[in-house]
Parts: sequence; structure tokens; C-alpha cells
Amino acid sequence: MNPTAAILLIGDEILSGRTQDSNGNHLAKRLTEVGIDLLEIRVVPDKHKVIVAALNTLRAVHTHVFTSGGIGPTHDDITADAVAAAFGVGIGVREDARAVLATNYDNPADLNEMRLRMARIPDGASLIDNPISKAPGFSLEKVHVMAGVPVIFEAMVAGLLPSLTGGAPMRSVSVRIDRPEGEVAAGLAVIAANFPALSIGSYPFVTESGFGTNIVARGVEATPLAAVEAEIRKLQ
Amino acid sequence: MNPTAAILLIGDEILSGRTQDSNGNHLAKRLTEVGIDLLEIRVVPDKHKVIVAALNTLRAVHTHVFTSGGIGPTHDDITADAVAAAFGVGIGVREDARAVLATNYDNPADLNEMRLRMARIPDGASLIDNPISKAPGFSLEKVHVMAGVPVIFEAMVAGLLPSLTGGAPMRSVSVRIDRPEGEVAAGLAVIAANFPALSIGSYPFVTESGFGTNIVARGVEATPLAAVEAEIRKLQ
Repeated sequence: MNPTAAILLIGDEILSGRTQDSNGNHLAKRLTEVGIDLLEIRVVPDKHKVIVAALNTLRAVHTHVFTSGGIGPTHDDITADAVAAAFGVGIGVREDARAVLATNYDNPADLNEMRLRMARIPDGASLIDNPISKAPGFSLEKVHVMAGVPVIFEAMVAGLLPSLTGGAPMRSVSVRIDRPEGEVAAGLAVIAANFPALSIGSYPFVTESGFGTNIVARGVEATPLAAVEAEIRKLQ
Repeated sequence: MNPTAAILLIGDEILSGRTQDSNGNHLAKRLTEVGIDLLEIRVVPDKHKVIVAALNTLRAVHTHVFTSGGIGPTHDDITADAVAAAFGVGIGVREDARAVLATNYDNPADLNEMRLRMARIPDGASLIDNPISKAPGFSLEKVHVMAGVPVIFEAMVAGLLPSLTGGAPMRSVSVRIDRPEGEVAAGLAVIAANFPALSIGSYPFVTESGFGTNIVARGVEATPLAAVEAEIRKLQ
């Protein structure tokens, strides 16, 4: 069994529609590559109680919980406090985090009170490197807390993932069929029944020339994937 | 109090990272316009038990639950059955849905057994119009079930939303500040404390010329928004 994961995206701006999230999709792809099975993505608002409840629900179920958003210096950055509350641990400015943050500023006075909020780390957490703007993320047990700005989130993911134990990477084959789903569904159902170890999905699309279907088969072993691909191509 | 909503996106292809969802963002914007407060987006895999559990959790809390995906003709389209199971009602091919579907096919034989799956509607549901490919969505009480293909999802949303009772539309003002968050955070905290009825968010961004901050204030009344915008502009 591969390790499992959930992603918790924290931010009113996603729920208002102002921002189209890209962090979930980025991390989903990276997790697939390293064999960690992503089983849920959840988007919640900047509300302390909601974040705490979601963290505790998701960490009770999954091997890893990755969060995005809410670790900056402003009043609406409340993720670190929510993580501390979820685990029932203390939180305060930590010297190693302060030292990392200080490398960002030539003038020590620029590390003002609000910016110091970014050095507040829950007790027992380890830091996640931020090569872009220094303010660190952190891991507390299975919960990995990262920034919302995509370029920083992606850099944190790149640093964090090699430290996690993955599983068997999921392979996939994809076949495009320029026929509507309804014409291939019966044949595909037979194929799916014949390959119970594979996950076979059918994804319709619409182009100017009509309806088509992408068939994607996923599994950890190459041999059955090659066999199912040959079967799927017969539907073309 | 405005009505509240959750969006449930159903599909392995989003969790594998193969597909970047756009339906959540589209509906989030539409809900903001009509004054329905979106409080959660959740992405789950094509697993019957998981979908049933998520439906029952979300419908216990929100005024509306909107789903996307899993209502096509193939073996992995299991949303309608999951909705029926969540409500504990029956499901079968319904004549009005079959009649709508039949208008898609000149040759009646083309409405084959797999395509007829798209006319399976839980007992008590009303149909949601699909002007693109006919196969209907449906509403069962507060749960609104729509297609995953974006062009069809968006057409269904356009047809459905006018039938729902909205609330006070959320207005917003947005101010771009070409300074890093850490330089405006203290002033912004004072402003946020002075306008407790507004939701004020700070969204950092990175460009080639450095760090900047978008400040977004949201609320239902125009007058305090104009006042807060003037205050925020002083941070520029």
C-alpha cells in the first residue's frame, strides 16, 4: 500500500473565485511521481476553527497532509496558529527561523514585528526551506505547511518531497479516441472488468469537430498497462 | 445571512494531477455574484463510499451542494448512484430524461444501453438542462449534480443558478501595492481592526521587479468599501 495524502488549500481568495488555484494541481503531479496517493483536496476559508477541524480530520486519515497558504506576515495569515491549536502545542518565534528570516534584510530594523510573525513556529516542528523569500514553511509530524504564492510553494515542495518516503510510482497510459463516450462505453466496461487491478477512467472532451474521449489507465506495473493499452486502441 | 454552498469535484483525474480543474473556479465566481457564500471545495476520487460520505457531510452543513463529474455513460460514472445512496432513494431510467437524451440521436439504436445510463435519475430529482450534449444533470433537494466537461458544466450552471435564491452579492475592492507584504502588514492590521464588518485579505505576489501585495476588501455594502479603499491606498 502506498502512503496516502490530502492537500488543504487555505484561502478566501480561492473560494471567492478571485484566484484560480494552481498549487493543488502542481503537488498532485509531484505526488503521483513519487508514489504517494493523493486522496483528497480540500479548500477552506481563512477561519481558525475551520482550519483546525480540517487539519484534525485529514491527519487522522492520511499519511501526509500538505497545506498551502496563510503563512505570511499579515493579519489574515493564521495557518501556523491553527496547526499549533490542532496539535495542542505551543507556538512562538523560534531562533532558527528568525535567523533564516534575518538573512533577507540588510537593515535589521526591516525585520519588523509583523515580519517576525513568519518566524512563529509550532513547538516540535522542523523547518521547510524557502529559497525564494526565506520565510520558512514547517513540518509538524505528518502535516507540512507551505506558502500560497505558487513560485514559493513549488520551491518548498521540491525541497520537501525527497525527504518523504514514497511508494510505487503510479504509471499511466492515455489513449485518445475521436468517438463519443457512448460509442466506446460498452467495450470499455468489458476491458475494465478484465483488468481489475488497473484504474481505468474515461474523460470526454468537446472540440469544434465533435465529441471525443480520452481513456486513461493507471497502475503500478508496466506489463498489464501495455496489455490494456492494446485493448483500448481497438476501440479507436 | 447569505445561503452557503460547497462544491464537490468528483474525479481521479484531478487527484492524479492529469487535469487542472476549472469548474470550481468558474462556479466560485458565479456564486459570489449571486450572493451565495462558497465555504468549501472538496475533490474526491471515483469511489462510491467516499462520494456518499462527502455528500452527506456537506449537505448536512450547507444550503447547497454542487457536484461536478461522473455522470457520463462509462463504467466510472458513478455519481448518480452515489447521490441516490446518500439520500436512500431509488434510481432508474426516467422517461423524461430518456426523451431528452433521445433528441441527440437520429437513429434510435444509437441510444444504446451504456448511453441510457445517462437517463438514470434518483427518485424525486428534477432535471438540469444540458444544451450542449443533452444528457441532463439533476437537482435532488439541495444537491445539484452537473457534468465534469467544463463547457457543459458552465452551461448547466448558467441554467441552474437563476432558479436558486441568492443573498446579498459580495462586493470587493482590490488595491495593488508594489511593496512587500512585510512593509504594509502593520498598517493593514490597523485598518482591518477598524473595519470589522469587512473581510480584508492580503495576497503577495512575485514579479521580476520584486515582491508586491494585492489587498482585497470584501463586503456587501458599498460605503464602507469605498472608505476602506481610501485607507488602503495610503499604504501605497
